[in-house]
Amino acid sequence: HLVLSKRAFISEYLTVYFTFLLISLGFPQVVGSTSTPQCNTEGLYFSDGRRKVDYVLVFHQRRHSSIRCPVGTSVSQDRLSIVSNGNFPQSVSSDAVAGRGGGMPGEEAANAGEVFMELGFAGGSEPTEPADHEMRLIRQEFEANLLEAGLEIERDKEVKAHGPSFTRLHAPWPVLCREAEFLKIKVPTKTSYELKEESGFGSSMSTIWRKLNQPFQPKVPHQDHERTKFLSHYTHTHTNTQTHKHKHTHTHTHTHTDSCYNLVNLQHDNIHPHWLSLFSVCCQVLHEEWARYSAFYKYQPIDLVRKYFGEKIGLYFAWLGVYTQLLIPASIVGIIVFGYGVATVDTDIPSLEMCDERLNFTMCPLCDGACDFWQLSTACGTARASHLFDNPATVFFAIFMSLWAVLFLEHWKRRQISLSFSWDLTGIEEDEVHTTAIDKLTWKDRLPGYFINVSSILFMFGLTFSAVFGVIVYRITVSALMAMSPDPETKSNVRVTVTATAVIINLVVILILDEIYGAVAVWLTELEIPKTETNFEERLILKAFLLKFMNAYAPIFYVAFFKGRFAGRPGNYVYVFNDYRMEECAPGGCLIELCIQLSIIMLGKQLIQNNIFEIGIPKLKKLVRALKDKGSAETEKEEERPPQQWNLDHALAAFEGLTPEYMEMIIQFGFVSLFVASFPLAPLFALLNNVIEIRLDAKKFVTELRRPVAIRAKDIGIWYNILSGMGKFSVIINAFVISFTSDFIPRLVYQYTYSQTGTMHGFIDYTLSYFNVSNFKPGTAPNTPFLTSILYSCVFCSRYKDYREPPWSPDAYQFSKQYWCVLAARLAFVILFQNLVMFLSLVVAWVIPDVPKTIMEQLKREKKLLVDVFLREEKEKFQLIQSLFAKDTTLQPGSHTLQPGQGVPQLGLRTVLLG
Amino acid sequence: HLVLSKRAFISEYLTVYFTFLLISLGFPQVVGSTSTPQCNTEGLYFSDGRRKVDYVLVFHQRRHSSIRCPVGTSVSQDRLSIVSNGNFPQSVSSDAVAGRGGGMPGEEAANAGEVFMELGFAGGSEPTEPADHEMRLIRQEFEANLLEAGLEIERDKEVKAHGPSFTRLHAPWPVLCREAEFLKIKVPTKTSYELKEESGFGSSMSTIWRKLNQPFQPKVPHQDHERTKFLSHYTHTHTNTQTHKHKHTHTHTHTHTDSCYNLVNLQHDNIHPHWLSLFSVCCQVLHEEWARYSAFYKYQPIDLVRKYFGEKIGLYFAWLGVYTQLLIPASIVGIIVFGYGVATVDTDIPSLEMCDERLNFTMCPLCDGACDFWQLSTACGTARASHLFDNPATVFFAIFMSLWAVLFLEHWKRRQISLSFSWDLTGIEEDEVHTTAIDKLTWKDRLPGYFINVSSILFMFGLTFSAVFGVIVYRITVSALMAMSPDPETKSNVRVTVTATAVIINLVVILILDEIYGAVAVWLTELEIPKTETNFEERLILKAFLLKFMNAYAPIFYVAFFKGRFAGRPGNYVYVFNDYRMEECAPGGCLIELCIQLSIIMLGKQLIQNNIFEIGIPKLKKLVRALKDKGSAETEKEEERPPQQWNLDHALAAFEGLTPEYMEMIIQFGFVSLFVASFPLAPLFALLNNVIEIRLDAKKFVTELRRPVAIRAKDIGIWYNILSGMGKFSVIINAFVISFTSDFIPRLVYQYTYSQTGTMHGFIDYTLSYFNVSNFKPGTAPNTPFLTSILYSCVFCSRYKDYREPPWSPDAYQFSKQYWCVLAARLAFVILFQNLVMFLSLVVAWVIPDVPKTIMEQLKREKKLLVDVFLREEKEKFQLIQSLFAKDTTLQPGSHTLQPGQGVPQLGLRTVLLG
Repeated sequence: HLVLSKRAFISEYLTVYFTFLLISLGFPQVVGSTSTPQCNTEGLYFSDGRRKVDYVLVFHQRRHSSIRCPVGTSVSQDRLSIVSNGNFPQSVSSDAVAGRGGGMPGEEAANAGEVFMELGFAGGSEPTEPADHEMRLIRQEFEANLLEAGLEIERDKEVKAHGPSFTRLHAPWPVLCREAEFLKIKVPTKTSYELKEESGFGSSMSTIWRKLNQPFQPKVPHQDHERTKFLSHYTHTHTNTQTHKHKHTHTHTHTHTDSCYNLVNLQHDNIHPHWLSLFSVCCQVLHEEWARYSAFYKYQPIDLVRKYFGEKIGLYFAWLGVYTQLLIPASIVGIIVFGYGVATVDTDIPSLEMCDERLNFTMCPLCDGACDFWQLSTACGTARASHLFDNPATVFFAIFMSLWAVLFLEHWKRRQISLSFSWDLTGIEEDEVHTTAIDKLTWKDRLPGYFINVSSILFMFGLTFSAVFGVIVYRITVSALMAMSPDPETKSNVRVTVTATAVIINLVVILILDEIYGAVAVWLTELEIPKTETNFEERLILKAFLLKFMNAYAPIFYVAFFKGRFAGRPGNYVYVFNDYRMEECAPGGCLIELCIQLSIIMLGKQLIQNNIFEIGIPKLKKLVRALKDKGSAETEKEEERPPQQWNLDHALAAFEGLTPEYMEMIIQFGFVSLFVASFPLAPLFALLNNVIEIRLDAKKFVTELRRPVAIRAKDIGIWYNILSGMGKFSVIINAFVISFTSDFIPRLVYQYTYSQTGTMHGFIDYTLSYFNVSNFKPGTAPNTPFLTSILYSCVFCSRYKDYREPPWSPDAYQFSKQYWCVLAARLAFVILFQNLVMFLSLVVAWVIPDVPKTIMEQLKREKKLLVDVFLREEKEKFQLIQSLFAKDTTLQPGSHTLQPGQGVPQLGLRTVLLG
Repeated sequence: HLVLSKRAFISEYLTVYFTFLLISLGFPQVVGSTSTPQCNTEGLYFSDGRRKVDYVLVFHQRRHSSIRCPVGTSVSQDRLSIVSNGNFPQSVSSDAVAGRGGGMPGEEAANAGEVFMELGFAGGSEPTEPADHEMRLIRQEFEANLLEAGLEIERDKEVKAHGPSFTRLHAPWPVLCREAEFLKIKVPTKTSYELKEESGFGSSMSTIWRKLNQPFQPKVPHQDHERTKFLSHYTHTHTNTQTHKHKHTHTHTHTHTDSCYNLVNLQHDNIHPHWLSLFSVCCQVLHEEWARYSAFYKYQPIDLVRKYFGEKIGLYFAWLGVYTQLLIPASIVGIIVFGYGVATVDTDIPSLEMCDERLNFTMCPLCDGACDFWQLSTACGTARASHLFDNPATVFFAIFMSLWAVLFLEHWKRRQISLSFSWDLTGIEEDEVHTTAIDKLTWKDRLPGYFINVSSILFMFGLTFSAVFGVIVYRITVSALMAMSPDPETKSNVRVTVTATAVIINLVVILILDEIYGAVAVWLTELEIPKTETNFEERLILKAFLLKFMNAYAPIFYVAFFKGRFAGRPGNYVYVFNDYRMEECAPGGCLIELCIQLSIIMLGKQLIQNNIFEIGIPKLKKLVRALKDKGSAETEKEEERPPQQWNLDHALAAFEGLTPEYMEMIIQFGFVSLFVASFPLAPLFALLNNVIEIRLDAKKFVTELRRPVAIRAKDIGIWYNILSGMGKFSVIINAFVISFTSDFIPRLVYQYTYSQTGTMHGFIDYTLSYFNVSNFKPGTAPNTPFLTSILYSCVFCSRYKDYREPPWSPDAYQFSKQYWCVLAARLAFVILFQNLVMFLSLVVAWVIPDVPKTIMEQLKREKKLLVDVFLREEKEKFQLIQSLFAKDTTLQPGSHTLQPGQGVPQLGLRTVLLG
């Protein structure tokens, strides 16, 4: 049993990557490893009970032709599908292949594997399916290829006329070793070394830290080998080039250990006893310590995640973990900043002045005719609310968050390098197969694709902008109509009603377009016919990101930078559709509106996406699938024996790639970084969401999806670039939000240049310009008698928020000197802020080394150790050959005698023997 | 002879790096390889005429103790020096070591090699020298170490009492191979492949290009193997760990080829015949095709430079070549921009208006009392000159040059990767030895060093600023004094005289401080006690750069952004030292002054540094050395036989590292990028300088310096970061120069907002404010009677350049609305320019892939080829062992029979044999 378990460790380790072998046979990413979501390992062996099932293939047999055939020789009408799907959205891919096939007719059937892929994906589109006979031949050839590659196959005993039929694959040990070598997978060796312990003060600090951290660590059994690291190296099997033809008679005796050889002794003779139990409980631990909400406060068992799902998914969760962890300080600072706003709201002079009824500012009417003049003190509420988000602490917070973004990226870089070191990914290179058919495409073939691409993206942009504009029109018209309503109740609630409904419409539009854009991005990327899978993924991500980013942020950008800036001034308003005045910001400033917009879209998007898209829809799909299966089962009643594990797994949903998961987080990162100056609580809400998100995703991966095919990756790829780009973009956006959307700069200018007392007293008066009520254009003056009659006796009493010359000035209603002065100050602030933050970011990135010091040291030690082991090995080898040579009598001795200490004797020997 | 030549190729290739062995013996970088500047290879063998001299050590014997001793056993009073020095400035290092020694007394003599270094460098400081006996022991131990490492030593036959005595080293073939392996040096193997030829249109284009390029290619013999690349791989000698003890009885028979073995067959059996002649003429070609001014228009033979001087120097010249090459388009565009200025100077309305005497602008006096009112039309000349550099084309040029900088960096990145591929540097890692003594230093030991560092750098900054301020004071006082002079001739030439002398003073100060700062930076870096040589170099470069950058640019920054901005206004001038008015810019604007300052400093610095520091001083040093040697020779008359090559080489100057060369170029890059908006001809002057500089440096390296120790490097290190940082900095600097120093923005504002006609007519009037002559402070009004009398009759006629309210306005002399409006426009332009250029730079950097496509393909092919060769090798090895095993009868057969096709038989075998 011990031997078996030992093997289980390496085997588990290697089968995860076995999909690469299948890819090299021309079967791209459609074969999954067995999934064991219930941690049930009993049904996972071949009928001999010894050979483990590593992969399961499914052939879907069509119902309409119900001829029974002997399985294995001629299965008619079968369609190949997959149990555990690769990261390729199945539904979308069928379109993709159809498009691709249409793009280059005649390229099909170039080789068996290639066509197989096409057919395997061809979904329900009947016309593109090849004839039954062709299908059968293809399947036979594929299975022959598998056998030739050294895999072992087991088919279902009973023969079914239709429905899924399963073929189990077992990858024997030598095959695994051979592939591991070709893929340059590093595996641990016997050689280990102690990680350096800190001494003195550092040591006691780290002990205290470890103790404090204890409750947050997941309970992973036997992790006390933390302080030793096993030296890893590539396997080194020295296969002959002809090894693809032999047959394996695999028996589980001790001999299997002979067949896989690491350059420096694979760690299998003297395996650490803890590994054994570790692997048998891997899935159990993931269930208990990771994929449950009650573990929300714990670190993730990332190493186990990686062992079970592969590096790519492991990196996603590690990244999500780092992001969530770093959101904690951001949230705390955000709360403090918000708290500062709350604490100072009662002492803030501008909002006090706004609420002061004695100051008696009579404002110009908010709409033509129907609206009356109004007192500024009635807007006291929004002024106070505004102060919560628009105070000097916000400026500090914006700088803080820009640096936080840099820090996050730097921290992640370090974490990534640590992970790739401890996961032995340091030497991997991405080497991808791409079909030669694609190579042949010239720019003429590609031109239509690119053309459609550009025009579609422009169209989508147009769509997004018109959606935003539509909502603006909705707001303008509805508020105008409501203002005209005779009901005073309606009138007083205009702003609240309109804002609330408009934001909800915005949110719904965003959610709908989000789904559409996701699908469109896939379609467009397929039109481009990228050469490799990575290339495809990158282009898809870029497109999807561009579209979804525009979609999510267009309304927010509008509120932040455009709303209220084209409204004109009293007596000279800007009208749309000849009748409706452009909307203005609330009296408290645009920042409060930005804040409302941002918080509703962010929260709404997260809640709805989490609940409906990530929980609701999968549940619904499962239900539908279950009902469908039940229906078919009832009509057939063919199931006789209890369902095998693979039957159960087949019923799970397919894994659809990490792109949607990353995308959701990146858009969220945008809310946290881009407009953080207007909503300091964004990090807090993001944190709350992510704590749930991690466990939700974990649950999904462990229990609701087929176990995905593991993919090796040493970094998060293009997502890093997107994050870094957003970080840079956020600097300029925040600079503009602070200087143009908030009242920070006008206040500073007032306090240090205009204020007589050096305090903020009189600020409100300073921001309001005078209007001569006789300057109203005909028909736009308010037609209510009440305040109007009073005002006409005092022509200059009506005020509006702007910096313009008073009516008595020679250039009445032109922008005043204050306007230009404040504008210059705003622009100067943007330059100062942007360059300061960019400089600080550079310093932060420069100060934090990319490779942690400990890793650097470990790498050096590993290198040294490797050389030692290597030299020892070589010496042993040399001695072996020497002993053989000494006993050999057929070669003529004399001309060269071997001396043990001589220069490079082994190869001297070799030359003698061969030359 | 053929065999020897073959060996010469690999040997040449490897000895270059042999210094690493010596480093690992604890003798850091003080041993050089033999230099053959006269291409004279005859004297370069041991007395047996066969073993090549690879390195020469020199022991300086002190004169005052003239005891004769038998050389080799006890040379008394000798000091070790070097023939071909490493990149360590000798004069400076002696200070350095003294400082270091003082910093940690008791650390000396930790091991022989270490102390040796210290002593070797200890220069003339007698007190720190150890006793004679100690010296002798140290030398003996060092030589024993060399012998133990497998080197062969030859000493001078005749014994001299003092002066340099030479010890020649020969590195035998096996030692070279062993070291090459440890250093992971890749060498070409037999296996070669054809580089892909482009086909069709691309092919004919590249043929035409090659033909056009032909005259610019250096004539390197036998370069027709351009289209084949030999696969390179690490050597692989499998040395025993005990090999350090054996003795080599090296004979030049064929057996030496057996002793070095590359993993995939070192290219020595079937060597390409061209290599042979190539290496014998390497030095000759460098002389004829590289190190002469008449070859200025040709590409550099970079591969030969690298083969002769090593990668680090090769990369420097490659970088310089790329930079110079890319300066060509920049110069052309610069000339066009300047040409545009010249062509439009007669149609430019503002300068026409300034020259128009009819407009009759009477300007306020330029100094108090002595100066009179003056007519603006007298400044016509500067206005026209100004237009040459300050026109709309300059804005385009600034954007162009910012993108050019990005393009240059991206292009260099690609070139670097191509070079590191064709030079087989892809796998090298920098692994440096640092003494453990340094490791032990705590922060307490380092604190004083850091403290001195920070305070010194601050002091230097202060020094630079006070130098700049001194020149300002000089300008103010001298121009005030000259203005008071009764001589009208003097008066009229005030500005020209003062500007010219001040710039020359600036230049002299810069040149002097430059030299001082260079020395100070070395001293400061040594105080920090960096752990490794690379670390030392990086810190030194950063410090030196910071100091020299400040030094070179401080006066330029002053003129660009500060001059004239603190002068006050008529009636309220700012005074320094109570008496002198702050200086103002010339009437044509500050840009013309910036331009003068920039061009004089740039040209002066280049001319003086090239002529005096790079040609004059070395010549002078040589002369002094020759005179000294002659003097000593005359008094002694001991020289009997003709001087050997090493005697001649010893007379050459030591190589002092690449830092000064790079530094000069980087500061020049600053002139080309930072303020290019003000001086579009800068790239042209830089180009002219560099064309000469390349050949000057080449001549210096080939004929005037000892051949430097080759150092491997795969990139230009920290210089790239500095370049990239300067590129980024240049964007914001150019934005400010255009918007604040030039008149571009005020013109735009005038044309599009104030101008009635939409043309520039009236612009000069718009930029001038009015001054009421009765507002002069007492004693500051001009005391000349001529114009004054006329003016006092028209109180508002006096004008000055500023945007201020006229005297008749309620806030007289306050900044006007125009001022704020122009300021806002300037700031907006900065934001727009900066973000636009940054965005375009990102796009450029993103569009250009870092790794060229062809290299990517070649890498893939090499990898594939390597796997093939490797598998073939393994198969052969397996067959050898199998045949041996079959013949061996002592092992018991039966339990495991070998089957040729089985999984991994070789290691199965191994396990059986050993286990």
